[in-house]
This record gives sequence, structure tokens and C-alpha cells, in this order.
Amino acid sequence: VTSRVVVGPPRAPADVVKTLYECGVATVHEVLGRRGLLGDQLRPLRPGARTAGTAVTVLCAPGDNLMIHVAIEQTRPGDVLVITTTSPSRDGYIGGLLVTSMVAHGVVGVVTTTGVRDVAEIRKMEFPIWSRHISAQGTVKATAGAVNLPIAIAGTSVAPGDVVVADDDGVVCVPRKQAQSAAAAAVARTEKEAEVREILRSGTLGLDHYGMRPLLERLGVAYEPASDEGDR
Amino acid sequence: VTSRVVVGPPRAPADVVKTLYECGVATVHEVLGRRGLLGDQLRPLRPGARTAGTAVTVLCAPGDNLMIHVAIEQTRPGDVLVITTTSPSRDGYIGGLLVTSMVAHGVVGVVTTTGVRDVAEIRKMEFPIWSRHISAQGTVKATAGAVNLPIAIAGTSVAPGDVVVADDDGVVCVPRKQAQSAAAAAVARTEKEAEVREILRSGTLGLDHYGMRPLLERLGVAYEPASDEGDR
Amino acid sequence: VTSRVVVGPPRAPADVVKTLYECGVATVHEVLGRRGLLGDQLRPLRPGARTAGTAVTVLCAPGDNLMIHVAIEQTRPGDVLVITTTSPSRDGYIGGLLVTSMVAHGVVGVVTTTGVRDVAEIRKMEFPIWSRHISAQGTVKATAGAVNLPIAIAGTSVAPGDVVVADDDGVVCVPRKQAQSAAAAAVARTEKEAEVREILRSGTLGLDHYGMRPLLERLGVAYEPASDEGDR
Amino acid sequence: VTSRVVVGPPRAPADVVKTLYECGVATVHEVLGRRGLLGDQLRPLRPGARTAGTAVTVLCAPGDNLMIHVAIEQTRPGDVLVITTTSPSRDGYIGGLLVTSMVAHGVVGVVTTTGVRDVAEIRKMEFPIWSRHISAQGTVKATAGAVNLPIAIAGTSVAPGDVVVADDDGVVCVPRKQAQSAAAAAVARTEKEAEVREILRSGTLGLDHYGMRPLLERLGVAYEPASDEGDR
Amino acid sequence: VTSRVVVGPPRAPADVVKTLYECGVATVHEVLGRRGLLGDQLRPLRPGARTAGTAVTVLCAPGDNLMIHVAIEQTRPGDVLVITTTSPSRDGYIGGLLVTSMVAHGVVGVVTTTGVRDVAEIRKMEFPIWSRHISAQGTVKATAGAVNLPIAIAGTSVAPGDVVVADDDGVVCVPRKQAQSAAAAAVARTEKEAEVREILRSGTLGLDHYGMRPLLERLGVAYEPASDEGDR
Amino acid sequence: VTSRVVVGPPRAPADVVKTLYECGVATVHEVLGRRGLLGDQLRPLRPGARTAGTAVTVLCAPGDNLMIHVAIEQTRPGDVLVITTTSPSRDGYIGGLLVTSMVAHGVVGVVTTTGVRDVAEIRKMEFPIWSRHISAQGTVKATAGAVNLPIAIAGTSVAPGDVVVADDDGVVCVPRKQAQSAAAAAVARTEKEAEVREILRSGTLGLDHYGMRPLLERLGVAYEPASDEGDR
Repeated sequence: VTSRVVVGPPRAPADVVKTLYECGVATVHEVLGRRGLLGDQLRPLRPGARTAGTAVTVLCAPGDNLMIHVAIEQTRPGDVLVITTTSPSRDGYIGGLLVTSMVAHGVVGVVTTTGVRDVAEIRKMEFPIWSRHISAQGTVKATAGAVNLPIAIAGTSVAPGDVVVADDDGVVCVPRKQAQSAAAAAVARTEKEAEVREILRSGTLGLDHYGMRPLLERLGVAYEPASDEGDR
Repeated sequence: VTSRVVVGPPRAPADVVKTLYECGVATVHEVLGRRGLLGDQLRPLRPGARTAGTAVTVLCAPGDNLMIHVAIEQTRPGDVLVITTTSPSRDGYIGGLLVTSMVAHGVVGVVTTTGVRDVAEIRKMEFPIWSRHISAQGTVKATAGAVNLPIAIAGTSVAPGDVVVADDDGVVCVPRKQAQSAAAAAVARTEKEAEVREILRSGTLGLDHYGMRPLLERLGVAYEPASDEGDR
Repeated sequence: VTSRVVVGPPRAPADVVKTLYECGVATVHEVLGRRGLLGDQLRPLRPGARTAGTAVTVLCAPGDNLMIHVAIEQTRPGDVLVITTTSPSRDGYIGGLLVTSMVAHGVVGVVTTTGVRDVAEIRKMEFPIWSRHISAQGTVKATAGAVNLPIAIAGTSVAPGDVVVADDDGVVCVPRKQAQSAAAAAVARTEKEAEVREILRSGTLGLDHYGMRPLLERLGVAYEPASDEGDR
Repeated sequence: VTSRVVVGPPRAPADVVKTLYECGVATVHEVLGRRGLLGDQLRPLRPGARTAGTAVTVLCAPGDNLMIHVAIEQTRPGDVLVITTTSPSRDGYIGGLLVTSMVAHGVVGVVTTTGVRDVAEIRKMEFPIWSRHISAQGTVKATAGAVNLPIAIAGTSVAPGDVVVADDDGVVCVPRKQAQSAAAAAVARTEKEAEVREILRSGTLGLDHYGMRPLLERLGVAYEPASDEGDR
Repeated sequence: VTSRVVVGPPRAPADVVKTLYECGVATVHEVLGRRGLLGDQLRPLRPGARTAGTAVTVLCAPGDNLMIHVAIEQTRPGDVLVITTTSPSRDGYIGGLLVTSMVAHGVVGVVTTTGVRDVAEIRKMEFPIWSRHISAQGTVKATAGAVNLPIAIAGTSVAPGDVVVADDDGVVCVPRKQAQSAAAAAVARTEKEAEVREILRSGTLGLDHYGMRPLLERLGVAYEPASDEGDR
Repeated sequence: VTSRVVVGPPRAPADVVKTLYECGVATVHEVLGRRGLLGDQLRPLRPGARTAGTAVTVLCAPGDNLMIHVAIEQTRPGDVLVITTTSPSRDGYIGGLLVTSMVAHGVVGVVTTTGVRDVAEIRKMEFPIWSRHISAQGTVKATAGAVNLPIAIAGTSVAPGDVVVADDDGVVCVPRKQAQSAAAAAVARTEKEAEVREILRSGTLGLDHYGMRPLLERLGVAYEPASDEGDR
């Protein structure tokens, strides 16, 4: 139960990260069998923000951001810091100075269950952060934690080197060993969706395109004309 | 207790919808006697979004958007889909494809107690949605529900054909049979507010314009000079 | 236990307010010893909003905005209204008309634990408001409360004449008698942060700049190479 | 939009109420097609509490319990007061004195989205209340509302005269005209469940009793032996 | 902004504490003009718990209970520890050992916005605690805070020496200098309520006893017979 | 991404489970280095409930309890079912019939992030359940999930065969391979705590017993006499 920092975990390859980035969170989540989301509480600081990278995981104590400093040393260009705490904390773990340091080391984003501060400055830097809270509350640097051990956020485990994709829809984690196949499946799904989009745009109903009418019949869905009864 | 789809309910007339749209949510809510709001948890995907239309109501199972496909077939141009679930669900019931289909059928907006996904795409389409959540989590299409039966959201009943008005302030539902008179009252209130706005802009106090000073006296409101006691 | 309105409390000086405004919420909160935040639930109506002013405090009954009208008469140019209620209320206490009246009297912002409405209009006026809720729900004007008595929001007391600073990071209250020294300390901290920013931008690690490595050793933080064991 | 009190609405018959009481909330909710619950936020003051009665509906202003006094006059023995507010309020709308008055008029329970106080006293009286909050915060008696108009709680409409059943599982509302048939169906379901209970008690699996194995096969559920891979 | 411990603040007299204890939270809150509640989120570990005492206030860092140890030394028999944190923390700040220590020093209760653990043991000891959370999560002892400085919980300031009364209805704080007069008023109110209780028990309506009928008329409350229209 | 059921995973040994049961959640969590808690939202149906067992993990779809039926077949006497969903669901996944079936197969408890129903019946059976919600809302049996794959609840991973300990303080998960050493450490800690308890009971301060005074000095904690300044 000592505090550990794992150095140099293998990362998913950069071209796979790039493909997953292009497909976006919702599509990647679908091809993972509707798994892998880090809940629906992590929101981007700026609408339209979007990133993907390999995870460096950080576990901090409540109200204490010491291990984020430790983690920055462990990052490589293209990494995303994924941060959580041993018990819930809404404090502002990350501000403009830490983001400046991250940018200097090639970090491409942050995902954190904590709060963030210096929001105006970070928005101006166009550095992408997904957080659960925004709070000016400062933190101390007194208690150890862990870097690059597996963590869990909202029902999903994140291991170092996994691919993290984040956009306006939230954040999804792709296990490193599934990343290649997920990327291929995501591209395929994206192409198929483009076709369906054209079909629906022409006015064809999803009911017909997806062939749902037999299902409705099986479920006993009954159509009936409106009466005046329901009027108020 | 079978699953029902009511076809062709009467709608409030389009000119009434247009008038209510112009008056906005807060004013319409006032002229309804401060009733009709669908709570304060439904937020627009884009700041500044605004719509009004006639309600097509949808009741879905948790994690299941089957009935939204069914509902689209029941829409007419100018309708707004109003969606809720039999038990709370934060999943992403609506994405870019469904919105494409809605646009193809003339739907002018969505109000839903669930989550929404493909948010970046929907924002780009400028399609107005009010939802309680944003989530990439996908849904299945397996369980029946209802279309165009009355539903309730946060203390307000919504019947098919009612007028739904939505803007940055939230969402209000006007019962179809009250829509005409509400529209007239809303126009009158809007005009009166324009006058009051000028009066207040000139520096006249609300206390004086609304004649509240006798009320303050009745309530025993006491004015006293500041002392140094309160200093810290 | 009668309803009281305190007239003419002393205010912090305008130049001190201006300095605190320039330093921003996070920095001011730091120099107060990480105190003074009004929680993390008060959010600005518009991203990028920013204000500072001297507090006029308002205590209202739930669902009743009478005392805000009373408070406006007590404001002076440069004041910020700080509003809370005797029990939690999410209603829309403030709308476009009240904001018009505030602007006419030189009020430079509102901080409220309640809801706000006419959001589109207020955004267009570029009047800065921090609120806990957005809601079209109207209020009555029937029950007395207090103006310019000390109130408390989320663990922080606010007295009339205190300096309130608000930006994207939240809202902080500086006790009037500490405002001068806090302003000086905030300027010093801002300057020091500018230096640190340059150091971190060059790639120097916070671990090294802040001299944290001895602490890590003391805490027993252990570095270890990655194994394949963690793979999934 | 005036304040209205509807006098003497028809009530569901007492024997039907009694049958529904005996079947309990979960069973009644099932036979309604899994509808009718007033959400999952209404909790009993005492574990084990249980009641059923005919609804007298009350709509109050936030922080104002005037209409509960009005409603008591409209009750008949065997009624349950069902109370909500025009905007959310956590205040203590009901205390020991009001409960004393209700008992004197034969009211058999209260269901309220507000708070309750004098909890120790009410528990001692063994009067059953389901509420969303417990709070000592007092209310005023200043604003009108409605009695015996339909209200909505958490997606379910409640009309005067409907049957309300409440126990440790929550609260369900049975529309008056469906009460008779629901009672019959609930009795049948209760009897069937007793048989199933014996079958499961003997060790028979639900998988077998309900014949779910073909469904599992259709869904592609795959059984596989444990490996050591999952070990940590 | 250093960490401070104030030694030996004056306490409200014991007989006043005893009287306020007997009157209970709801009544004391009423005679304070419906002020003084510490919100509605602090719940007793055991139903039926009840205490009153003089406040020793404690401000802790998140996830750090160091100052509670400091505070115990500052207690005198009859004190209640009132604990909050600089930012929200749900951790288990207090367990069986700390309670043992408190009992040894005559502390008569704890009120805390944090979590508590060893709940089964503390219940067995019949030591009264009101907390916002229950959590086994341990805390560290690393960061300074304050003892016997004024703190604020949910809109109410608590100063050392104030009287804190807690029961099933929540927690109320009586400023030390108002304690004597509040106690007298609370006794008077309790006696008056006993009379009203008898009147209501006899079946007299609150409408009549409190003379509310003219108010209803003024408010335009309209009585109307039920129609069949409302039937579903 | 198919649905999988892992058969016959290794379990932690029964004597280790028994020892961890006796030590309780807070102590076990401490010896794990303050890790392993399944958050603070899982509450027992009955105060005083307590269990420990080996985990059979279940992942269900929202509003669908099919996989619980599948899981019961995979249980052995002494197991605890640990249940979560792919997206949050508050529905009543478990009722009296399912509990009857579990008891017949020797299951010693349930931990679930969903809701539970038939609460009165389950309490009478004295079957221990920790859940996030109580809700009468029924579920369907239509969508596949997983049994005995690792799941995550509130930041903690749970693998099949891990030891789950639950009491009034919450729920903690001990990884199977750490269970033996955790049990030994927990016994040692329990014994040491018994000694400390006696020391504190005698009136010795924690400040002295734990030797904290030098830390306070280092942190700059200043003691000062009370003034009258703080009086209100």
C-alpha cells in the first residue's frame, strides 16, 4: 500500500489514437459494445473541445494535487492526464500554471473528476479539459498517491496507455489492446452512418429503414385515432 | 396497459404558436398564472436557442429509444417532440441521425428528460434541443411505450397538441384550449413590460412604480443607519 | 426578529475594488489563505463574465423577491447585490426589468443563490450575474426579509461593504477591513505567478521548481518500471 | 388562473382501497403496466409505514402552507392528502399541530414533495407521512393555491379521488376509474407470486421457472470457464 | 491567515441550554424569526436522537481531521463540536475512538458537514451525531485549520459559545446573546402550542381557529363543485 | 463485445472472509491503505446489517434485471452478488422473489448501484442488501449483460472472487490475492485500536497519545485567548 509511480508503460500507437479521435466519442463507445464511458458528469471547459491521447493515470488525495506534478514528469507528447481522487473532491486541482507546464511537455488534454480553476485563462490557451467541477478552491501538496496505476471513473477502469477520446459528448476509454480493432470498427461504423444519414435526410423513416414494424407488432403497439376525450 | 400510439390529435393553430414564440417562456408562464413550466432542469444545447411548436408526446422505457422512431412518423411540420421515460434515464436517446430524420419531417425542436449525444453535430445543424443530460451512452430498441398520450414532466402535464415554448429560460407548456387566450394575454403583458422598462431605465424605483412602500410599512420593515458594530 | 434595512454601511474603497478585480477570483482566494469562496455552485450567465464591487446584501423569503426592490434603493454605483433566501429557492428572482433598474442605479453585478430568468435579454445587456439556477418561475412580493445584514453563502459570511469579486472561477468575498492588504498581496502574487509561468513554459518541471522531490522521498513515493502484468 | 378549491369530488370505493392496500405498492404498480409511481424520492417517516386512501390534492406556493389548512376542510375519513408546490420547496410544511388536525378529520396519511417537521412527535403518533425532505424550516400562510385540481409528481398525474397506496417501496397512484380492475389484477398477481415464491424457495432457478434459457441463447450469452488472466 | 485556536470563549449559561433543549429545534427556530437552521442536510445517526450544548467550532481541511483532535482539548462538559471544512468533504472524519475521547471530556454531541464512520459502534454508545454523510473513508492529520473562530453552515453563522440544539428535525444555532430571550420565547410558544393542539384535536379547523377565511376571500380563493370533466 | 458469463472463478477462502467480516468495513479499508470503498452512496436496507462474502459480479442494462437471474445460477454458498448497470438506473432490480431464490442458493448478501423493492418483505427476511436507491419501479428481462467480469463502482474495481465486506459504514472490496494479508493486518489493527480506546477513555488526549503537538507547532497553529470582539 505504498505510493507508487509506474514509469514508461506501453502506449497505444499514435495512428490508432488519431483514427479514434476522428470517429468521436459516441461512435467509439458504440463499437466497444456500448462500454467505456467515464459517466456523464465530465464536461468540457469549452463547447466544441475535442481531444484523444494515451492515458497517464493519476490518483490524488482529496484537496491535494501533489501527484499531478509527479505525473507531468511521466508524460510523453500525445498523452492525456486522467485524474481522480481517493474520495470525492470538488477543488480546483488544475490552474493556468499547471496547464502551461503540461503544454510544455506535449500533453494534449486533461480528464479529471475534480474541479479546475483559472478557467478563463485555460480557455484562452485552447487547452482541452473535461472536469466534473469548476472551483477556485486551492489545493495543498502534502499527501502521496499514485501515477500510472489503473483507476476507475464511473464504472469504467482506465489503465495507463489506454486511449482516451473526449468531445462534447463526454469521455470514452479504449483499452490499449482493443484500440486497433476498435479504430477499424469505428471507421466502418462512421461510413455506414453517413449512408444512413442520406437515407433519413430524404424522408425515409427509421421505422422502415431499420425494419422495426414487425417488432412493434410483436410488442403489441396499438394505433388508435385521437378522440376528444383527452382534451382539457 | 397495452402500448398505444394516438394518431392525428388536434393541434393548436400555427398563428397562436407563432405569437407565443415571440413572447417567450417567462412571459407565457406568467400569463398562465405562473404555471406550466417543465421544471428548471431542461437546458438548451446551445445558448440562445429558441423554439415553439405543437407537442407530440413520447413515453420511452429507460435506455430504450424505440418509441422516438415511432413518434417521428406521427409528426407534422411545426411539431415539437416532448420525450420522457417510465423511470429516469440519462442515456443519449437522440443523436445526429435521429435529428436528421426529424428535420426531414419538419420537426422544429425536441424537449427531453433524457440525455442527448452527437452534440457537436446537432449544434452545427442549429436544431434546438432542451435536455436534462448530455451523454454518449447508446440506447436499445426493444421495449414498447406510448406516443401521444398525456405525460408529465416536473409537475406539469403535457398533452398532444399543446403548445410548447422553449428558450434560454426553460420550457413551458400551454394547454391547447388555453393557447389562444394565453397568446393574447402574453402580447398584452409584453407591451406593458416595454413601458415599465422605460420607466425603470429612467431611474424610477420599482418600490415607487409598483407602489410597494405601504406594503413595506405593513410588514414592519425598519430602516436603520449602519453602525460600526457589524465590522469584522 | 423584525425585518431590517441597514442604510449607508461603509464600503471598501473603489481603488481597492479595482485592484482585486484585476487579480481575479483564484488569486484573491489564495491570498485570503484559501478562504472566502461562496462555494462552487454559483455560475456566470455568460462565459467570460467578470465583475467586482462592494456588497449590498439581501435576504429574501423563498419564492419572493420583494427585498430586491428594497435593496436597489440602497445601492450606490459600484455595488454588487448579493442575494440569498431563508430556505433554498430555485425560482427566477431576477429578470430583465430588475436588471434594467439595477443598471440605472450603477449596480455592477448580481450574485444570487436563487434562479434568474430573461436570460437571453440579460446576456444581450452584458450585465454580469452569477446564480445557482436558471428558471422562468416567477416570484411574489409578499414577505419581508433583510437588506445589509450579514448573510452566509456556502460557508462564507458576506457583510455589507465587503468586496465581492466574480469571474469564470466563481465568487469570492473579501472582508472590508482586509481588502486593502488582500489587494496588495494579490498584486504581489500575480507578479510572482507571471515569473513561474515563464519558468514552466520553458519545460522546467514543477517538481524541480518548487523543490518537491525531498517531500516525495519523505512520503515514500516509489518509482517502478512498467510490467506487462497490468495489461488487459 | 384564479385559485380554486373543488368540493366533493367522487372517491374510489373504500373496499377497493382496502384491497389495494393489502397488495402493496410494488404489486399495484406492476398491474398498472409499471406506471403510476410518484418517483423514488418520497420516503416514509417511519420504516414499515403503510397506508392507502383516496387523494385530496393540494398545490401550494413555495414556503407557504396555507392551502393545506384549506384542504383539511375538504377531507373525508379515509382520504390521503397529496401535496406539491408550484416550485420546489424543502421547507417543513407539516408539523405536529397540522397532523393532529388531520387525525381529527379521519385523514389516513400524507404524501408531499415538501419537507416535514416535528418528526419525533409525528412518529410517536404513528401517523404515516411520505415526504421528500425533513426540515424544521417554517412556512408562511400568504399565497393562494389549489385544492382538488389534478397535480403531477415525478411524471405521474394525481387527480382527486384517485387511490394512493404508500409503503416502504414508495407511493403509487391508481386512477379512480381503473381502481376496481387494478384491485382485481393485484389480488391475482399476489396469489401467483405466492406460488412462485414456493418454487424458488425449493431451489428451482428463475432461469428455468420463467423459461429464460432460449432468450439467453438468442441474445448470444456465452458461458466460458474462468482463467487466471483476470487475477490481480 | 494563520491557523488559530481561540481558548476559553464565553459560553451561554447551562440552564438556558437546558430550556432550549426541552423546546426542540422547530420551536426554537420559530422564535428566532425562522432563522438559525443549519440547512436540512444534517441528519442524526439514530432516529430520536436529541441534544443541546454550547458550540466549539472547528474548521478542517478536506480529508483531514487534525483540528478535531485540537478541538477536543478546548471542550468543556456540555459542549457540542460543530465541524465544517474549507471545501466539501464526505469522508469519515469521526469514528469510535474520537467519540470515546469526546465522551471522556463531557462533549454532548457532534454536528458536522462531513461524513462519520464506525456508525454501529457510535449508535451503540448512544452518542448523538448529526452529519451530512456516512462514509468509511479515512482522513489524514496533516493540515492546519481553526478552532473557535466563527464558521458558517448553510446560510447560518455559528460562533463559539452559541447554543446548538439538534433533534430529528435538524440543527438550529442560537446566538449566545439571544439565548436567554429565545429560551423564554420558546417556553411561551410551547405552552401556546399545547393549547392549540387541544383545540385542533377537538375537530376545530385551523381555518377557523387562526381566522384565515377573510384572507382566503381577499386572495380570491373560489370554491366550486366537482364536475365529471376531470375524470380520466 | 458479446455477452459473457464466466463460470467457476476462484474465490477467496472462507476463513479469510470470516476474519474480514469480524473486523468491519472501516478497519479493512484502513489496512488496504484507505482504498477499496465502493463510494458512500450504498446504504443498507436495515440499520445494523452486516455481511461479508465472495463476489459474483453482475453487469445489467438499465431497467433490465435479466443477468441477475443468470448470476444466481453461478453463485455458491457464501457469495455476495455485486450488481451495477451500463448506465445509471434507479429501478427496483431486486424484490422478494429474487431474494427468496438467492437465500435458497446460499447467497449471503447483495450490493447494488440500482434500486431495490419489496423492502418490507426483505427486511423481515433479514437478508442484507446495500443499494443506492429504493424504488418500486419494475424492470424487464430483455437485454444481455455480463456475469463474473470485473466491474467498477465509484472508483473501485470488483473482480469475481474478491472479498466484499459491508456494514453500516458502507462497502469495501478486498482483492482476492490481498485478502489473506489484509485479514491479518485488520486483526492487528483491531487489537491496537482496543488499546487506544482504553487510553482515550481515561481522558488522555489524542493530541498527546498520538504525539501531534510538534506537528501543530510546525504548522504554525496559534493559541489565543477569546476576546469580546467576536460577540454578536
